[in-house]
This record gives sequence, C-alpha cells and structure tokens, in this order.
Amino acid sequence: MTRIDSAKCAALLKENDNFLILAHANPDGDTLGSAFALHRILSVCGKKSAVRCADEIHGKYSYLFDDIDNGDIEFDKIIAVDVADKSLLGDSFAALYGDRVFLCIDHHMSNREYSEYLLLEDRAATAEIIYRLAGELGVETSGKIADCIYTGIATDTGCFMFSNTTPGTHRIAAEMIEKGADYALINRAMFETKTLSYLRLEQMAVSSIELKFGGKCAVMTITQDMFRESGSNESECDGIAALPRKIEGVAIGITVRERKDGSYKVSLRTVEPYDAAEICAELGGGGHNRAAGCEFYCPLSEAKAVLLDAVKAALV
Amino acid sequence: MTRIDSAKCAALLKENDNFLILAHANPDGDTLGSAFALHRILSVCGKKSAVRCADEIHGKYSYLFDDIDNGDIEFDKIIAVDVADKSLLGDSFAALYGDRVFLCIDHHMSNREYSEYLLLEDRAATAEIIYRLAGELGVETSGKIADCIYTGIATDTGCFMFSNTTPGTHRIAAEMIEKGADYALINRAMFETKTLSYLRLEQMAVSSIELKFGGKCAVMTITQDMFRESGSNESECDGIAALPRKIEGVAIGITVRERKDGSYKVSLRTVEPYDAAEICAELGGGGHNRAAGCEFYCPLSEAKAVLLDAVKAALV
Repeated sequence: MTRIDSAKCAALLKENDNFLILAHANPDGDTLGSAFALHRILSVCGKKSAVRCADEIHGKYSYLFDDIDNGDIEFDKIIAVDVADKSLLGDSFAALYGDRVFLCIDHHMSNREYSEYLLLEDRAATAEIIYRLAGELGVETSGKIADCIYTGIATDTGCFMFSNTTPGTHRIAAEMIEKGADYALINRAMFETKTLSYLRLEQMAVSSIELKFGGKCAVMTITQDMFRESGSNESECDGIAALPRKIEGVAIGITVRERKDGSYKVSLRTVEPYDAAEICAELGGGGHNRAAGCEFYCPLSEAKAVLLDAVKAALV
Repeated sequence: MTRIDSAKCAALLKENDNFLILAHANPDGDTLGSAFALHRILSVCGKKSAVRCADEIHGKYSYLFDDIDNGDIEFDKIIAVDVADKSLLGDSFAALYGDRVFLCIDHHMSNREYSEYLLLEDRAATAEIIYRLAGELGVETSGKIADCIYTGIATDTGCFMFSNTTPGTHRIAAEMIEKGADYALINRAMFETKTLSYLRLEQMAVSSIELKFGGKCAVMTITQDMFRESGSNESECDGIAALPRKIEGVAIGITVRERKDGSYKVSLRTVEPYDAAEICAELGGGGHNRAAGCEFYCPLSEAKAVLLDAVKAALV
C-alpha cells in the first residue's frame, strides 16, 4: 500500500483509461455522490468508467446518475470511494474485487489500507477529497458534478450540523451552489422526506421510550412487531438511533432493535464526557466515542438489565 | 421613513450613545442572535445598550447573553432587529415603543416601514446584515459575537437546509466557525434537543395524520387534549407544522392546531408549483408561497371540509 496525495492521484488517473468505481454496501450519500462525481470527472478527462455497488441504490439518489450511461465496461483498474475496508464492499463484491483495488479514495482515518494506492484525507466527507481532485485534474465542478459533491458533503455532515463540519466544508458548499448544485431540492430529498410508514414506526418507538437514572439515560425499543404494524423496514431507519439522545437532559441514548432472528442490535449515542465506545466494548461491541454499538442474544429484559448496569457504572 | 445602507447605518450608530434594542415577540434565534450581536458590537464601540423582548426568552438561548450585563439603561434611541412590523413587537411593546423606533434592521422584504430609518436587505437572516454592519464599524466578529451571528444564520436557514441559503450564507458561517463560534454545541441546542413531552405530542400528532387526494395532501390535527396529555405546549411547537409536507409524495401539508378558545389555526406547507399563500388568501389568510396560514372559528369537521375543498381546487 502506498499513501499518495491528490496530485499523485490525478497522475495515476491520467495514466489509465478504464475504471470500475466501487461504492460501499448499504450505500449513503457520500459514497454515491463521490462515486458519481468521480465518474463524471473522469468522463470530462476522456476516460471510461462505471459505478457499481453490491446493494441496491435507493430511489431517492437517482438524480445523481439518471442522465448518464452507467452500463457495463471493460475495466483495467478498480477504484473504491469512501470504503474504509474491503469487507464494507459487501460479501459478494469483497470476494470479487476486495484484493484487486488499485486506488482507494477515503476520509475514514480508520482505513484498513487494503488498496495498492490510498488517497486518505481527514475531511468531513470523501466528496471534499473528490472536489480537490477535480481541481488537480483541471475539471470544473459544475452542473451535475456540483450536485454529486454537494450531496456527499451535506449528507455526511447532517446538513452542516455535525461537529465534523469545517470552514472548508461550508466554503465548498458555497462554491457548489454557485456552480449550480440544486441544493434546495437535494436537501429536501435527503433530509425532509419521510415515508408515512417510517413516521408511524417512529411514533411507536417514541411511545416505548423509558427514562432512567434521573433522565440522564433514555432507552428506546424497536420490535419486529413494530416493523410489521407500521409497514416500515430496516432500510429507512438509519437515523432513528439518534432520537433518544436528542431528549433534553439525556446524556446516553440507547436504541434496542430486535432483529428477525430474535437477537438485539443496540446503538448507543452519548454526549461528552460519556464514551459510547468504552461502554460497548465492555459488552463485546465497539465504535466511536459518541456513537457505538453491541449485540445481545438473550431475552430483551435480560439485555436491558445488562445494558443499564453498564450505563450506571459509566454515569458514576 | 428613510431607507439606508449599512455605511449610513454605521454612521447613525456612531452619532448616538445609548440604545434600546428590541427583538420581536415569540423570539427566535435570528431576532435574539442579531439583537445580542448588535449589543456586543455596540459595546466594543463604547456605546451602551440593552436588549428587550415582550415575551420570555426560552432557556435554550441563554448562551447568547449569559456572560453580559443586560440591565436597565437610560436610552436615547430605539433599534428594532428582525421586526417586520411594529405589531410583531408584541402588544405591550408595540404600544410602548412602536411609534418611536429610530432604526429598524431587517431582512423581511415585507417590512412595513414603521421606523425612522430602515436598513433592509434581502438576506437569509438579519444576522447576515449585522455581520456586514460589524464590518462597517470595524468590529471583529469573534468569540461570542460569532456565536450570536452563527445562531441567527443557522436557525433562519434550518441549518443551511432551506432554499433561502446562499453561497454568502455558507461563507459567513465558515468565517464565524474560524472566529470561534461554538457551532457544534449551538447546533445541538437549536436542532437536536427536544423535550420528551414534545416527542409525545409529535407522536399523537402523527397518529392523527390523514392522507387525501391520492396521498398528495396530508392533514395533521393537534388538539388542546393532546397538549394536556403530552405535557407539551405551544412554545415548543414552532417546527411541527413542517411535518405533514415531509411525507413522501405529499405536495400540500396541512396542520390544524386547536387554540385554547376553541378556534383553529391552520398552517399550510407546499412544494412547487402549489401556492400556499394563494390557497390561504381564499380562506381569509395569507403568507409566503411555500408557507402560509389561516384561521377558522367553526367546528373542526367544517373547517376541514372547507380547507379540503380549497386544496382540491388547487390540485386540479
């Protein structure tokens, strides 16, 4: 593995002609926005490429690619964008392509260095790195390229709400809007559109919330019954685990989600100084300081008791 | 009334020494952020001022002013910030100060020109105008001034989500972050903190949602019973009217809120090309193209029938 900067990355792209661009499985706005921005930038440079993802792409992202030909091509080199580890390509793609990735462009500082070349920068979104790469290649980031880059940046920062947002993030957003990014429409599609079934699930989840330890901890439970009754499904529930921690006074928010096999997936969200990763590590899980997770293969009441013991110890 | 630019406004501020700064009633992040930013800027210029609002200021805004002396002062001139009409000062303040406003600084193009001097600019937030005014006065917008300006901009744009956001908005945000605005903490307090009683109200409101006209219209009803049962109150419900329109496929979202006197306050939110102001105007109300309102003094079923007739006509 060789670490490279964006100038060297631009040179590598110029030396080759046909690329397969891979997004990570369970694709989000940054991996897709970055992948299709790169596809469009390469196209301006006279290169051929196609974007692929192991999982189906949600219809709300279709504006990123509905005007382009993303058909099969013969490729020489594989590029992974926003993919911190080959396992995140998804099982099938990891087996097919995992050991053949020529170039990885990523912003996760936990990147597992599985590619031949790695362009890794500590930015809010991989789309910020793609923006700078376009500059190196002399490609103007206008029109649909601006849509793709804006999408990656906006989605990975929670629309500029999260602490990973930097002055540079805002300045790239400003430039993308000037270059024609349809930001109002993108924001509506990304942040302001929910299905009624999802709202009904959220409603059931809220009614399950229990406050513990004088309101410092909130526990929300989502059961398979709730999925059935609401008509919602796992694919639209990415953001729901953030809900318990949003309650005024709550320092540790817990979401317990029942899986189809009857086991439980637990998500923890904390505010400083409580360390979600530390609490989950004790329970056999892991993650980041403010967001981490673990699993339970036991009855719900037992899982909750173990969880609350760990939270109690952390709150002391 | 004399329209002025920010240079003339800076000159007027320099010529006087003691100011009463008024925020609008039912105060939000922009009127408060702008008012306290102006207070701090005037303070740097050696001027005395105090900020006043007819309504109580919610505790979540206390970081805007908890380090300053905002006590009573003798004042010569009254400044209204983010106040489009003197009636918006609140009944008591309108009676006391409404006809004596020396200077109004505002971004509502519907401003009723009630002040002696008016600095009116079409910006996303009044805080953007205050930022430029600081530049005219040679005051650096650092530290707590940056907190105040960031708050005004972020709250009036829904954290850079709404279509009023411009490249300039993002660039000022970038600068405020560089100047020390505690943006992550501010965003959490403004956008990510909800009371459990509010979540319970939202849950009841969601369960009331009815889809009409093939899912193109959603009607949500909030009753006084729901306020009582949830423990929530009107003061924390600013954002709830946006909910029905967020449902996938909904073009016209309606929130019907029962008032204490049994009358109904109706809020409409639309997507293009449906004109909320036009629909509400027919019903004796008014507002903007995408957000408008009207009132009903009749039984709920009757109000809904009249509303849905108007919506049906608009959807044709």
